[in-house]
Amino acid sequence: MKTLPFDSVKVTSGYLFGKQELNRKTTIYSVYDRFDESGRVKAFEFTYDKNDPNAIQPHYFWDSDLAKWIESVAYIIKNDPDYDRSLEEKADAIIENIKKHQEENGYFNIYFTVVEPENRFANRDWHELYCLGHLMEAAVAYADATGKRDLLECVSKYTDLVIRVFTEERSAGFVTPGHPEIELALIKAYDFTGDKKYLDLAEFFIDNRGCSDEINNDKMFQSHKPVRELDEATGHSVRAMYLYTGMASLAKKTGDQSLIDACRRLWEDTVFRKMYVTGGIGSIHMGEAFTVPFDLSNDQAYTETCAGIGLMFFSNEMLSFENNARYADVIERVLYNGVLSGLSLDGRSFFYENPLEINLRDHITNIWGTKRYPITQRLECFSCSCCPPNVTRLIATLGNYFYGIDGDTFYINQFVSSEAEFDGVYCKVSTEYPLNGRVTVSVKGTKKVAVRIPEWCDNFSLNKDFSFENGYAVIDNDGEDIVIDLDMTPKIVYADPRISSDAGKVCVMRGPIVYCAEGVDNGEFLHSFILPKELDATETFSEEFGLITLEVPCRKRLPFEGGLYSSFKPQTEKTTLKMIPYNCFANRGETDMVVWFCMDK
Amino acid sequence: MKTLPFDSVKVTSGYLFGKQELNRKTTIYSVYDRFDESGRVKAFEFTYDKNDPNAIQPHYFWDSDLAKWIESVAYIIKNDPDYDRSLEEKADAIIENIKKHQEENGYFNIYFTVVEPENRFANRDWHELYCLGHLMEAAVAYADATGKRDLLECVSKYTDLVIRVFTEERSAGFVTPGHPEIELALIKAYDFTGDKKYLDLAEFFIDNRGCSDEINNDKMFQSHKPVRELDEATGHSVRAMYLYTGMASLAKKTGDQSLIDACRRLWEDTVFRKMYVTGGIGSIHMGEAFTVPFDLSNDQAYTETCAGIGLMFFSNEMLSFENNARYADVIERVLYNGVLSGLSLDGRSFFYENPLEINLRDHITNIWGTKRYPITQRLECFSCSCCPPNVTRLIATLGNYFYGIDGDTFYINQFVSSEAEFDGVYCKVSTEYPLNGRVTVSVKGTKKVAVRIPEWCDNFSLNKDFSFENGYAVIDNDGEDIVIDLDMTPKIVYADPRISSDAGKVCVMRGPIVYCAEGVDNGEFLHSFILPKELDATETFSEEFGLITLEVPCRKRLPFEGGLYSSFKPQTEKTTLKMIPYNCFANRGETDMVVWFCMDK
Repeated sequence: MKTLPFDSVKVTSGYLFGKQELNRKTTIYSVYDRFDESGRVKAFEFTYDKNDPNAIQPHYFWDSDLAKWIESVAYIIKNDPDYDRSLEEKADAIIENIKKHQEENGYFNIYFTVVEPENRFANRDWHELYCLGHLMEAAVAYADATGKRDLLECVSKYTDLVIRVFTEERSAGFVTPGHPEIELALIKAYDFTGDKKYLDLAEFFIDNRGCSDEINNDKMFQSHKPVRELDEATGHSVRAMYLYTGMASLAKKTGDQSLIDACRRLWEDTVFRKMYVTGGIGSIHMGEAFTVPFDLSNDQAYTETCAGIGLMFFSNEMLSFENNARYADVIERVLYNGVLSGLSLDGRSFFYENPLEINLRDHITNIWGTKRYPITQRLECFSCSCCPPNVTRLIATLGNYFYGIDGDTFYINQFVSSEAEFDGVYCKVSTEYPLNGRVTVSVKGTKKVAVRIPEWCDNFSLNKDFSFENGYAVIDNDGEDIVIDLDMTPKIVYADPRISSDAGKVCVMRGPIVYCAEGVDNGEFLHSFILPKELDATETFSEEFGLITLEVPCRKRLPFEGGLYSSFKPQTEKTTLKMIPYNCFANRGETDMVVWFCMDK
Repeated sequence: MKTLPFDSVKVTSGYLFGKQELNRKTTIYSVYDRFDESGRVKAFEFTYDKNDPNAIQPHYFWDSDLAKWIESVAYIIKNDPDYDRSLEEKADAIIENIKKHQEENGYFNIYFTVVEPENRFANRDWHELYCLGHLMEAAVAYADATGKRDLLECVSKYTDLVIRVFTEERSAGFVTPGHPEIELALIKAYDFTGDKKYLDLAEFFIDNRGCSDEINNDKMFQSHKPVRELDEATGHSVRAMYLYTGMASLAKKTGDQSLIDACRRLWEDTVFRKMYVTGGIGSIHMGEAFTVPFDLSNDQAYTETCAGIGLMFFSNEMLSFENNARYADVIERVLYNGVLSGLSLDGRSFFYENPLEINLRDHITNIWGTKRYPITQRLECFSCSCCPPNVTRLIATLGNYFYGIDGDTFYINQFVSSEAEFDGVYCKVSTEYPLNGRVTVSVKGTKKVAVRIPEWCDNFSLNKDFSFENGYAVIDNDGEDIVIDLDMTPKIVYADPRISSDAGKVCVMRGPIVYCAEGVDNGEFLHSFILPKELDATETFSEEFGLITLEVPCRKRLPFEGGLYSSFKPQTEKTTLKMIPYNCFANRGETDMVVWFCMDK
């Protein structure tokens, strides 16, 4: 299918509408302020002086932080004609500095110009092309939103330099980027400008990856073989997602079946073997990386917010090749759980990593300062602060994920109150999803409407006849309202028995929302709660969370007395477990948190 | 009670007899050969030349490795009048070098003499007093076994220096040792020589610990408060055990109740909150340390072999204060499981750490060479090779743990075919324990016999009337055979629900032996096996292991198809799980291993 772009979709109300409002009114400013305070904005003035001991040295990926911020501003402008002009002024000021400090030959980088000019294009892992990729996405978005093409011209000139250095002179210290990103950006630039140089360069980087003997030609860098031969998701999970998205974007242009097949294998390996129930990916902090199939430790989970966002990008691209609801299922899973968990309820703080379990008592730091587990509270800014502006640009463009068209069929991929208009087709969706499961759809201009029946949904009703195709209920469109009722009764979910971390455990979902329990509500030793097989949960709407919380009658195992091991089964007592949406965890101070629980007989 | 020393006990047959034979015939030689190959023996010749690039630099704890080896030789000599004279010759050669290179003022250390002479007594953590402690234990044992007092004289002279530097001049860079050990050694030296200087120095180190502002006055070094105020087992677990043993040894001499109370609190905190089912202690490799109560991760378990041995030392000392079977229960648990697991079946290789779970698939090493989990195979020698000679000296002295006398009562603490003669009392025990639970005891010379009824034992029978006191069946001794039958039916054991790592899991024990399952017998994904509540295990004697193996009819959860998460419970199939004694794991190549399993409804 062709997925509708966000600028043809208007979110009108509901949970995600609230997130967009928070993003537009709070997050976009907060991220800028933190970037300003930390010296990132100033870095674009190129005033860093090595001899000044108080000078803040730019980092080699700071270009990308501001680039994603400008890109986010562009989307906010595009969404809202009455946008705050001060955002545009701030973006213009940064772009002005980029113009001013771009070199004659096209080179631009706030780090490798002022700190290590001798080391340009020297090391795969130093993020120069990654930064250019993000500047390119920003340039396209900003030109599209404002009509201002200054940044796009800078990027075009820089791209010419990259083309010369990498594809003609071959004088760089490496052949393909260590941190993929530019590939998908080049396809966006090609789409927007029609200039084939972008497409050719994307093809160059993708075709050459894993083919040379450059450094780090390993699984960590997704460079252990030519991309068309890849069959397992490996290495740094954000880099993996960006690369696979770039591969899929390119394949969409070229129709290259071997590339499409590789993308499908990589997506299946990610989702069927290496994804948490929250949609999070990347099991360990060492390398922020994928490990092996079914290795999904809950307390050591890294599951970077950016990796979740990358999985959304990748899955949405896959819909181009296959009208299969599984891709939209994964988008829903990771958005509502492992991505939104990355943003605090006040819209100001972020998780880089999103663990599925916190036992604060075990979070010791040893005498050498080594931490044993990921952090347990959101921060407003990180030294590596890739996630915050990634969240802002994602939330501003959520409309990208809702709808698709293929021939005479209109696809409803996500359930959000919104209106869409595209190519003579008009769609309106009304729903309070995910608070409840009723979705009313009205489409004009296509013969058929395909409504995704979510993977999590065991019961639903529809007011029309339908056929079931690849996860979609396909309805002959008579122009009347289509009403779908998805059963959102909270339920027990099991994990594949090959996942050792979840052996014998279950979690609770209500619709697409994964639940957790926190120490602040339930006290210590969350592991000693035992969920009943049949949940009889009381549902309450929480203003604070904007979602439903649950009270689950259950049992709790009682501590032993006089020794740690016994041939007598632990006693239990009746109690109630308060569960909240996983994506709301750690909003009430540092506290224990558990997603996977033991289950009663 | 007064526990009988090993030299009044002769092991006559059975499982532990086999271990002693292996130790005497194989391990003692293998450990020496590895120490020789690695330069440890040569280091006592003081020929290290900094300017020779091929020279092997001694390590600052190598003194202790050879000291423990000499101590082991002494015990082997003591046990067996027909010992191999070549062992004594090797020990004599090392002692000769110690005499030769000891300085005029008494100082001796193979590292701080040749490598960093300027840094003597400069840093708590550099193990000089630890090395002296081990030399002292060796000296006492060797003098006792052979009558040769050369090493004891060296040690006495060195002790005089330490007394001067630490207690009179106070000129050292620290007040108390960073790695306790000398405290318990000093009490042994006092016991053997009667020279009060040893007792006084032990008292000095124990009384001053945690009282000054020296470096590392923290929980990691068990120095955060005066020892009499300690109430939780903290820090490096081997150091903790050696310190607590030293404290108990001193309290036995002085009768200091506040010290005895502290020892009891520390023992209870260790055993009731921080001990694995195998008796292993020390949950993490970071600092080889205790963490917080109930934090007992199975796959990250460090549980150093030496820490288990230290827990045996400490528990045996505690029997002096309290005739309570719980101390002997812990000795049995850790000996048969977490200590013997440290030695390979061929007697040549060792585990430093003894994890309770291995998922080989997850044992990745990241791009920076960081290992995620402990090692999975035994080695013949380590760079820090404290465990191998600790195992040899422990096995040679197992007789220390079997019996005790208090007034007119003879205590049977462990069940081993053996004969003991002490102070006019004679005891003979015949048993095939732990192969089966029948133990025949005959004691002459005391009015009562107290037989430990193990904590693990839910059913037993006795051919005599008895009263039950603190875990012992106390019998009026009429000189006839006492026959105890302990029910060794394999059974399910539960963990305290506060241990999150074992939540919802069970393990299998047969008598004192904890069982595990290995991948080599059962294939991948050991976590997907589900044990039945009522075991119906088939028992088979294994020549290879010298113990019983089990075949347990059970169920196994089957992998999902098409996705990792589902609201449908995993299907199961009937199968059989082969279980072997935990202490035999990793003797058949690197393979998965699990102790704690899910249980069927």
